[in-house]
Amino acid sequence: MQVYLDNNATTMCDPQVVEVMQPFFSELYGNPNSLHKFGTASHPALSKAIDQVYKGINASDKDDIVFTSCATESNNWVLQSVYNDYIKHGKMNHIVTTEVEHPSVLSTCRWLEDQGVKVTYLPVNDQGVVEAHTVKSFITDKTALVSIMWASNETGMINPIKEIGEICKEKGVLFHSDAVQAVGKIPVDLQDVHVDFISFSAHKFHGPKGVGALYIKDSQPLTPLLHGGEQMGGRRSGTLNVPFIVGMGKAVELATTDLEKTMASIREKRDRLEDELLKLSDTFVVGDRENRTPNTILISIRGVEGEGMLWDLNNGQIGASTGSACASADLEANTVMLAIGADNELAHTGIRLSLSRFTTDEEIDYTISHFKEAVARLRMISSSFAKVAPTPGGEAGECHIPHHMAH
Amino acid sequence: MQVYLDNNATTMCDPQVVEVMQPFFSELYGNPNSLHKFGTASHPALSKAIDQVYKGINASDKDDIVFTSCATESNNWVLQSVYNDYIKHGKMNHIVTTEVEHPSVLSTCRWLEDQGVKVTYLPVNDQGVVEAHTVKSFITDKTALVSIMWASNETGMINPIKEIGEICKEKGVLFHSDAVQAVGKIPVDLQDVHVDFISFSAHKFHGPKGVGALYIKDSQPLTPLLHGGEQMGGRRSGTLNVPFIVGMGKAVELATTDLEKTMASIREKRDRLEDELLKLSDTFVVGDRENRTPNTILISIRGVEGEGMLWDLNNGQIGASTGSACASADLEANTVMLAIGADNELAHTGIRLSLSRFTTDEEIDYTISHFKEAVARLRMISSSFAKVAPTPGGEAGECHIPHHMAH
Repeated sequence: MQVYLDNNATTMCDPQVVEVMQPFFSELYGNPNSLHKFGTASHPALSKAIDQVYKGINASDKDDIVFTSCATESNNWVLQSVYNDYIKHGKMNHIVTTEVEHPSVLSTCRWLEDQGVKVTYLPVNDQGVVEAHTVKSFITDKTALVSIMWASNETGMINPIKEIGEICKEKGVLFHSDAVQAVGKIPVDLQDVHVDFISFSAHKFHGPKGVGALYIKDSQPLTPLLHGGEQMGGRRSGTLNVPFIVGMGKAVELATTDLEKTMASIREKRDRLEDELLKLSDTFVVGDRENRTPNTILISIRGVEGEGMLWDLNNGQIGASTGSACASADLEANTVMLAIGADNELAHTGIRLSLSRFTTDEEIDYTISHFKEAVARLRMISSSFAKVAPTPGGEAGECHIPHHMAH
Repeated sequence: MQVYLDNNATTMCDPQVVEVMQPFFSELYGNPNSLHKFGTASHPALSKAIDQVYKGINASDKDDIVFTSCATESNNWVLQSVYNDYIKHGKMNHIVTTEVEHPSVLSTCRWLEDQGVKVTYLPVNDQGVVEAHTVKSFITDKTALVSIMWASNETGMINPIKEIGEICKEKGVLFHSDAVQAVGKIPVDLQDVHVDFISFSAHKFHGPKGVGALYIKDSQPLTPLLHGGEQMGGRRSGTLNVPFIVGMGKAVELATTDLEKTMASIREKRDRLEDELLKLSDTFVVGDRENRTPNTILISIRGVEGEGMLWDLNNGQIGASTGSACASADLEANTVMLAIGADNELAHTGIRLSLSRFTTDEEIDYTISHFKEAVARLRMISSSFAKVAPTPGGEAGECHIPHHMAH
C-alpha cells in the first residue's frame, strides 16, 4: 500500500481536472489573444474557469482575479508592488507580517529590508496563531501593508483573518493574505472578510502545479510584476496557460462545492489518526483541532528525529513531511515549532501529516500501524530517548537534549 | 480545411510532448522538493529534461538554465534584476535595446525609465534588423545591459547576435537576448555566441504554454525575481511545474534534433507560399529570406487592411496575425513596420503568416488560393485602393491614405 500524506506540499491532480485540460494542448491550442478562431475557441472554457474561481472564493464582479504561475509569484507580486507603489517614492516604509509565513513571503520581506523597508515579523502564540490585537498594536502611520497567512502550511492553524481584516480596514492599511492553505480546505468568503489581496495556488487543491492566482479587491491599482503585453487586462503578461487555467477552474469548483461535507469526511479520518498517534507516550500535536484546517496534523514525538521518521515512513511507502517542502532539503529545526516555543530538540521531531479527499480509511489504518512501529524502532536507537527504551504502550523515558542537536 | 499559420504566436503542443507529461499529473505527482518517494520519483524525468534543454542550446555545465513560467517572466527577470543589481545602487544607469522588442521587454524598459533608468531604443534598418555598429556606438561607460532579440516575432528577421555579443564582451557590458523566436527555428549555439542571458519559451516550439527558461552564462549572480524557497537553487522559487518542465525538455529535443532538415522542409513551403503571394500586385514582404527564420512571412498588401484580411482568412479557417498576439487586441499600426519606415497606411496592411513542422503542402495550396481570393474581395471594397479596381494578376491602382487611417 502507498499512502500519500503530504497534501499540504502538493496534491494529486484530480483525474477530472486532467480531463478538462486535455483539449487545450493539441486541439484548441490557439493563443487566446489572437483574433482568429484558433484563438477564440478557448474563450468559453476560460470564461467558465474564471466564473468557477470567482464563485469558489465568493469574489464580487468589482474585484479582479488574475491568474499567475503560482502563489509564490502572487506573494512576490503583492509585496514587491506595494513597495514600488507605496513605499519607494512615498511616505510609508513599513510592512507587518509574521515569523511563520511561507518562504515566498519571508524571503521577499528580507529582500525588501535590504531595500530599506522596515518589516515587523510578529510572533505567534502557543497555538501557532497570530493574535489580532498584536497585529493592531504594531500598525503605525508608516505601515503600508499587513501580510498574514490565512492558515499555516506547517500546522494548519487558522489565523483570525476576519478580525485582522477589520483592523486593517479601520486603520486604512492594505491587507494581504497568503490563502494557499485555506482555499479548498476551509470556507474563504471574500464578501464576509475584508482583505485587499489573497494569493492561492491550484496544486494545493488537486489542480495542476504551475498556476495560481491573485485576488485584488475592487480591482484596485497594483503595478504588475510581469510587464508586457495586454494579457489579463495588462495586469500579468505572458501567453495564457490555457489548459492550467481551465484546470484551476475545475479544481476550485471540485474543492469548494460541498466543502463542508468533504471536509467533515477528511476531518473524521484526521481525528482518528491523530487520536491513535497521541496514544503514543511523549507526543503532542500543535494547535487545537477546532481552529485547524481539517486535513493537517503536526505531531511531535520526543526522541524521534523528524528525518529518521520520514525515512522509516518512506520505507513503508508513506509520504509525509517535516514541514514546508520549500525548505525540506535542509535538515533544520522546524521554524514554526521554534516560533511557538518548542525547545530545539522538539523542533527537530515534528512530522506533518496532511490528508486529502482521496485519503481512504484503509490508508489511515495502515498509517497508524506503521507509524507506531516506526516510533518504537526509532526510539530504540534514539540517543535522546535512551535511558528507558520505550515499549509499545509504555511510558517514555527521561529526555536529554543530545549534544549534536544542542547547537 | 483548417490551416493554422500563427505559429509565432503559439504552437500546437506536440502529441509526443503531451504524452511524456501525462504521468506527472495524477501518478508521479509528488513535490520534487519533498524527501519521500512520491517527491523523488520525478527526479529522473526532471534530470532528463534539463539535459535536453542544455543540449538543445549547447549550454555548458558551468552555465545555469532556470525554468520560469514563460519568456515574459524571463525577460522581466533579467531587466528588473540588472536594474536592482547594477543600476539602483550603482554607478551605471543605462540600458540599450531596440524599438522592435517584444512588449515584455519594451514595457519593462518603460517602467524602468519611470524608475530613473536611461534607455536607448535603437532603430532597425529597412530589413528590420539592428546593426551591430549601431549597438556599439550607443554603449557608454554607464551602460549596464544590452537587450536585443535574437529573431523578430513579427518579421522573423535575425539580428547579428554573434557580432553584438563580441561587442558587449569587449566593452564589458552584460548582453541579454530574447531568443523566443530563435530556439527551435534556427541554430542557437551558446558555445559559439557570447551572450550572458537568453530567454525562451516552450510554447513557441510545440511545448506547453506556461513554461519557459532563462539561460545564465557561467551561473553568474542575478537577484531572483521570485523570492522564496530553495527551488532551482534559490534562483526561482515556486513548486516545480513538473509535467511542463518534462514537456519542455521533450519539445526542445524534438525541435532541435535534425533542425536543419526540419527547417529546410518548412522553408520550402514558406518560400512557395511567399512566391505565390508576391505575384499579387502591390505586395511586399519584409526582409531578405536568407536572414529570416524559415517559417515566417510578414507581407503587406497595399489597399487591404490587416484586420479585414484576418477576418476573411478566418472565414476561410485560416489563422494568421497582424503582428504580435500580445498586442493584437488593438487595431493599431504594426509597430515593426512603422519602425522599418513603412508609411502609416502600409503599416496597417501587414499580415504575418508563420508555419510550423506540422504545416502541410495541401494547407499551403489552400492558403494560396484563399489568400488571393481574399485580396481580390477586399481590394474591391477598399477605399484606399478604389481608383482602379484590381483584377487578378492586374496592376493595382493609385493609393490614397484614407481619412480614417490618417490619424
